[in-house]
Amino acid sequence: MNKKGLAILMRTKMRPLPPAAIKRVNQMEVPPQENSNVVSSTPNASINPPRDFEQVRDSMHSAILMNKTEILDAALSEFCEGYFSLSKENRRKLVLTLAREYDLDRIQVRELMKQYLGLELPIGEKAQHSSGQQEELSLSAFYRIERNLRHALKPNYEVLFERLNTHPGGLKFLSDIRADILSFLAEENFPSLRALDSYLKEKLGTWLSPANLELHNITWDDPASLLEKIVAYEAVHPISSLLDLKRRLGVGRRCFGYLHPAIPGEPLIFIEVALMKDVAETIQEVLWDDPPIPECEATCALFYSISSTQPGLSGINLGKFLIKRVIDVVKKDMPIISTFATLSPIPGYMQWLLSKLASAEISGPTFRENLLKQEEEGALVDAAVEFSSSKNGMEVMKYLLTSTNYEWTKSAKIISVLRPPMMRLCARYLLQEKKRGKALDSVANFHLQNGARLCSVM
Amino acid sequence: MNKKGLAILMRTKMRPLPPAAIKRVNQMEVPPQENSNVVSSTPNASINPPRDFEQVRDSMHSAILMNKTEILDAALSEFCEGYFSLSKENRRKLVLTLAREYDLDRIQVRELMKQYLGLELPIGEKAQHSSGQQEELSLSAFYRIERNLRHALKPNYEVLFERLNTHPGGLKFLSDIRADILSFLAEENFPSLRALDSYLKEKLGTWLSPANLELHNITWDDPASLLEKIVAYEAVHPISSLLDLKRRLGVGRRCFGYLHPAIPGEPLIFIEVALMKDVAETIQEVLWDDPPIPECEATCALFYSISSTQPGLSGINLGKFLIKRVIDVVKKDMPIISTFATLSPIPGYMQWLLSKLASAEISGPTFRENLLKQEEEGALVDAAVEFSSSKNGMEVMKYLLTSTNYEWTKSAKIISVLRPPMMRLCARYLLQEKKRGKALDSVANFHLQNGARLCSVM
Repeated sequence: MNKKGLAILMRTKMRPLPPAAIKRVNQMEVPPQENSNVVSSTPNASINPPRDFEQVRDSMHSAILMNKTEILDAALSEFCEGYFSLSKENRRKLVLTLAREYDLDRIQVRELMKQYLGLELPIGEKAQHSSGQQEELSLSAFYRIERNLRHALKPNYEVLFERLNTHPGGLKFLSDIRADILSFLAEENFPSLRALDSYLKEKLGTWLSPANLELHNITWDDPASLLEKIVAYEAVHPISSLLDLKRRLGVGRRCFGYLHPAIPGEPLIFIEVALMKDVAETIQEVLWDDPPIPECEATCALFYSISSTQPGLSGINLGKFLIKRVIDVVKKDMPIISTFATLSPIPGYMQWLLSKLASAEISGPTFRENLLKQEEEGALVDAAVEFSSSKNGMEVMKYLLTSTNYEWTKSAKIISVLRPPMMRLCARYLLQEKKRGKALDSVANFHLQNGARLCSVM
Repeated sequence: MNKKGLAILMRTKMRPLPPAAIKRVNQMEVPPQENSNVVSSTPNASINPPRDFEQVRDSMHSAILMNKTEILDAALSEFCEGYFSLSKENRRKLVLTLAREYDLDRIQVRELMKQYLGLELPIGEKAQHSSGQQEELSLSAFYRIERNLRHALKPNYEVLFERLNTHPGGLKFLSDIRADILSFLAEENFPSLRALDSYLKEKLGTWLSPANLELHNITWDDPASLLEKIVAYEAVHPISSLLDLKRRLGVGRRCFGYLHPAIPGEPLIFIEVALMKDVAETIQEVLWDDPPIPECEATCALFYSISSTQPGLSGINLGKFLIKRVIDVVKKDMPIISTFATLSPIPGYMQWLLSKLASAEISGPTFRENLLKQEEEGALVDAAVEFSSSKNGMEVMKYLLTSTNYEWTKSAKIISVLRPPMMRLCARYLLQEKKRGKALDSVANFHLQNGARLCSVM
């Protein structure tokens, strides 16, 4: 890094953005209401002179309707700059205008549907799939109307999205405007805006497909402007100082990010890896000051943090592909590494466990499910006698887990009897509790869907 | 370039691929029947052992139906390798299987349509666009079914395309397989395969959107493996020798290519630029051995060649964006350059002119359009008296333009009288002759759609 870059970095505030602004990939499905304050400050609104609502709306109309190259470029630039110079209220009004006035043509859609329903399905089609030459020809009309319908079902605002995507800075703008839209939707549900968001999300997902992203090994030699982003967006284990940042990129650690050619110098998502002898049991083992072992002795790569930098890409799973590619790179670089693991929080466990304990309390003794084994219950009741006089293990457990100052955590005895049932129930929570076929826990679902397996290292 | 790179380059055959294999961007809409021989030799089929048709078909089925990450990756790799080890006949059979068996579910589509047609359009919608809160809510059901229909109208083979796109080497494979499909379609029209091709083309167009491409200034310092591609694919003015290649990248010239992160080391399209004092009148002025002026004196950038390297991207206009970006880069680098021009062939002019002359011949003297002005006709009949005794200017013109050895081109007099009507009629051909609102000439249409203007430098 050159001197100037370092000087800039030294001045960089070493505090991450407000926690509410940052979304872990693992929690990307969480509603984005907390983002609004950040999003509106992200684009440099202060540099651009404020515009009237009408002025920006007109540039939006031109950006959709114009065809002359020069005028179109000017309109797109004007719209991008103008949008974030508007007040929040006017931005909301503008995206609603876009969603409503540039919706699709329902009359045309209905017309095509009627034509389609008027066609006779070939006999083979009705049963299963057909392959005859004759039947193929009779499907021509289907192919034609299906193609036309696919086009008719595209809302007219797609033109604006497509044009922005090919306009310099437009892809980043689309991500910023989506973050804005998500914050509006969190405040109030507008079906037309919800439909626009879902459409935009799908487009962004296509444009940001992993084939279009470049894997970059982020090191201390990278420009300060890029490293600054790592400091700002590290969401799992905040980076506290310049020294801390240097350590995250130093011996025994790796950091990889996905960059898109149209958004240079800003990783969309990045992951931090620690090279270890064995899978760590606690995060403290990973956040060392000095590497515990030389890199050549490492046999385990531990993914200890993954952070997404763009709130507007919420719901687009880039982490899955990033992890896969990083595993390939690490394997190739250091063939001795054979274990790849993650050290992740389990954000939903406590809530699930407490609700299980509460529902056991409500049910009568005959019907309630005993979450504890007999020997676990006995040991717990005995160990916790100074905290609770109850003879019911589940009551004791609930009392301990909801106590205000967790006095019991000072008792080695309670910890040792509480650990086995807590671990057992956690395994059940992670592996058996499902919602629509997915793991109930959002972090567990993220990792299991990416191909991870669960096993206990205790 | 390192020594090894140079050694490889020295061995590179300095002949381009057979001309039929190469498609100029300007002519990208031409049916691709000539490509078949090249396409089948492009992927390195010889390295992979040949497979049975059934074996490759099974890997294709797995690649679509599997969900387990490891198995899926193996199936995709197996399919990519296996496909090009098949005979042409089996490849055709396989893509037809894909088009027919993984088509969309028409029963589901019809079901959704019936639901949609059962909905009552809000009153505002029937007239023009609505914006009321109440009407918005009543549109919720429309948004939902429209979204479901968009998904139902996606053929099932989209899964394969999407998965290949994120698979290493998959994007290049998709481009290769499309080139193959285009060659099958040129031999025989299969409606199902035509529908698949049109779908694949649209997907490729999205993935290869200019925002996903990197502009690269190709120089003599680039790897031999990349420069080799420039030699092989230069379609307009073949590169004859190593020295010729070095000149194209040397003083007074520029070469820019679009690269995609997933297809490294191979520009998808590239353009060659000459820096001139003025717009050149002939291509010979551009293909100099020594630069006619120092670069600092250049005020004109002349685009003299643009070549696409992927037959499978036929119909996807990357040239438009490439030219736009190159103009920006050159303007920024050399602000003194103010004229940007192209020196292009006019491939359809002669055919158009001859058909005009022929139809004049057929029509009676009363109705025929006289293409020549009176003074042009007189001068032409007089000048060409030794070649044709006709007193009809158009007959003389036709005779000269269709004569087998073009003896008349040795006559300065004929050239001087033929030039004014030829130039005038050419301007009319370029500017006024349209087909579906586009310039009839494919090259003219390419440039005019990109924002070029036409003016005579004579």
